[in-house]
Amino acid sequence: MQVKAEDLADLSLGAVFLATGGGGDPHVPELICSEALKTYGPVDLLAVEDLRDDAHVVSIGGVGAPTVSLEMLPSVDDAANTLKAYEDHVGRKVDAIVSFEIGGANSLIPITAAAGRGLPVVDGDGMGRALPEAQMMTYAIAGVCPSPAVAYDYAGNVTTFTTPDTPTYERHIRAAAMASGGMITTAEHPMTGAELKPAIIPGTVGFSIKLGRALRENRGRADQMLPALQNVFADSVYGECRLLYCGKVSDKATRIIGGYDIGEATLTPFSDEGDALTINIKNEYLVAKLADRVVATVPDLIVIVDYETGTPINAERLRYGQRVAVFAVGCPTFFRTERALKAVAPAAFGFDIPYVPLEDL
Amino acid sequence: MQVKAEDLADLSLGAVFLATGGGGDPHVPELICSEALKTYGPVDLLAVEDLRDDAHVVSIGGVGAPTVSLEMLPSVDDAANTLKAYEDHVGRKVDAIVSFEIGGANSLIPITAAAGRGLPVVDGDGMGRALPEAQMMTYAIAGVCPSPAVAYDYAGNVTTFTTPDTPTYERHIRAAAMASGGMITTAEHPMTGAELKPAIIPGTVGFSIKLGRALRENRGRADQMLPALQNVFADSVYGECRLLYCGKVSDKATRIIGGYDIGEATLTPFSDEGDALTINIKNEYLVAKLADRVVATVPDLIVIVDYETGTPINAERLRYGQRVAVFAVGCPTFFRTERALKAVAPAAFGFDIPYVPLEDL
Repeated sequence: MQVKAEDLADLSLGAVFLATGGGGDPHVPELICSEALKTYGPVDLLAVEDLRDDAHVVSIGGVGAPTVSLEMLPSVDDAANTLKAYEDHVGRKVDAIVSFEIGGANSLIPITAAAGRGLPVVDGDGMGRALPEAQMMTYAIAGVCPSPAVAYDYAGNVTTFTTPDTPTYERHIRAAAMASGGMITTAEHPMTGAELKPAIIPGTVGFSIKLGRALRENRGRADQMLPALQNVFADSVYGECRLLYCGKVSDKATRIIGGYDIGEATLTPFSDEGDALTINIKNEYLVAKLADRVVATVPDLIVIVDYETGTPINAERLRYGQRVAVFAVGCPTFFRTERALKAVAPAAFGFDIPYVPLEDL
Repeated sequence: MQVKAEDLADLSLGAVFLATGGGGDPHVPELICSEALKTYGPVDLLAVEDLRDDAHVVSIGGVGAPTVSLEMLPSVDDAANTLKAYEDHVGRKVDAIVSFEIGGANSLIPITAAAGRGLPVVDGDGMGRALPEAQMMTYAIAGVCPSPAVAYDYAGNVTTFTTPDTPTYERHIRAAAMASGGMITTAEHPMTGAELKPAIIPGTVGFSIKLGRALRENRGRADQMLPALQNVFADSVYGECRLLYCGKVSDKATRIIGGYDIGEATLTPFSDEGDALTINIKNEYLVAKLADRVVATVPDLIVIVDYETGTPINAERLRYGQRVAVFAVGCPTFFRTERALKAVAPAAFGFDIPYVPLEDL
């Protein structure tokens, strides 16, 4: 399978859905990726089982507060230059590139980096969605060392890291991102094919294209969106897809704290009668409560879409007065192990509530 | 000339005076340096004019908020490991080490790094005092590139930087220091001997030993301290030494903001009658005002010493009720050029006051 320029609109639409509010706006990265694919041709999408065990794979993507991505636009060369800086640093060529986060712009950056070099991109990623911190990615949870890692900033400054553990690495790259204006591109969590195979959420690039196609084909058909999504998710690594709420945004406030977008959104019914839905945000939509009852939490996916068109709305674009629908989707089973939940359950974000799988709520 | 273990008490006493309140507490670095000199023997102190023009020199020292140095103690191996990480990174051996800041602990760290490797330390430094930001050092003002640079943290994590300009480098290392608990050791501003010669404040290591000896020999002799200091400074790169004030600390507050200790101290006369002296702090003592009249500003040196013993008091150790004397000393002429004043005049610290040399105030 290949990713072609004409797949990118669907890929990024699907990726914004999977981004659960975070992941960064993919519009400019999509334009850049499209140019790269038109210039260099399609990129091979490699099923993880077809990857050689001794292949040298590195994950590439953007790190920062999504709000910043609206104003500090990436350069066309950032992805390729990050890959080059990584290879220069480790003194070895890369055999394949993988996304660490399918949600949002980070679905596209690996493809852009791969295009100019004729490298394949592994079909899958390290989150199956978007999540705000590096230690929440499946690669880290599976025990992959984050370094040698390289950060590349808007001015072409290269910073390298030897940090052997991901929580410390997260602190270092977050500080580097903030010192660079809020966004950097990183090449990190280098792996062999053998290390990647048990650590990846497989198939998410291809799935994101399929999901985007369903969203596009049912755009503006509010009654058909839920069955269409349920149909797509039924045949995936994800679980149940559920409509949580329809209403309007009556309040929303986030601030950039410590390099993250942190805050809360409140939705109320169109009729103004009935319970409000509140959603806690740390880059992503993390916890949804109907009145005081928890109706969905991270690591399950909480997605806000435009009520009329079904277009997913990132947290940094969520505004007072928008009419929206809220979906919840069960996360990949990888995240439901005890080991993974230590990194991604609500408690890992400071919420004093247990993780209860969506289908049991 | 050599630096021996028995010189270190005087060296660090002099260095705390030149630190003008900042520079970090040298007590633990002095113990570590003393061990290194006892183990490996004295370190050669090389006059800058004796340095080969093609010599590979790197400056090594601690970066962070001085308050942190009281609680997050350096390891015995930090200095040597930072040097090794730098040499591994650039793939070349170093010929000599130089201090970027004579004031405080950074007078000792280069000597510790040099000791185990039998390398000489160049007599001089990049500040002639202590200053809070990298772009304020003479090396940066003279146009030396800060990178390749390496930061080494308490856990042994190595971060490298390619930043080509010092203000950006300052932002990056400050962020790295904060992400590492508040303190890192850096190897930076690599230079050839030819580059170092016009950029260094010469002779400050030897001078600091001489100054420390004068402070020690006149300890407890309040009436003889001023003439003794004036005698030492008369034969130096510094200017006039003046007694500004005697009194007690009636208020002092600093907070760690953006990785710096920032705040203010107020001194009042012993008799409680007469004008107060206020001193603005950003790691260092920057501006002294008697009532509303500016009586000394950075880059001239403002130094607070214990009134009874003459021991210099770092800002992080300044406390309510201490009885103190305040000296001001003219800075090296390097800092009085237009180019240097752009980086170190009060305006560079956000104070809306012009720099007037001490002797004209």
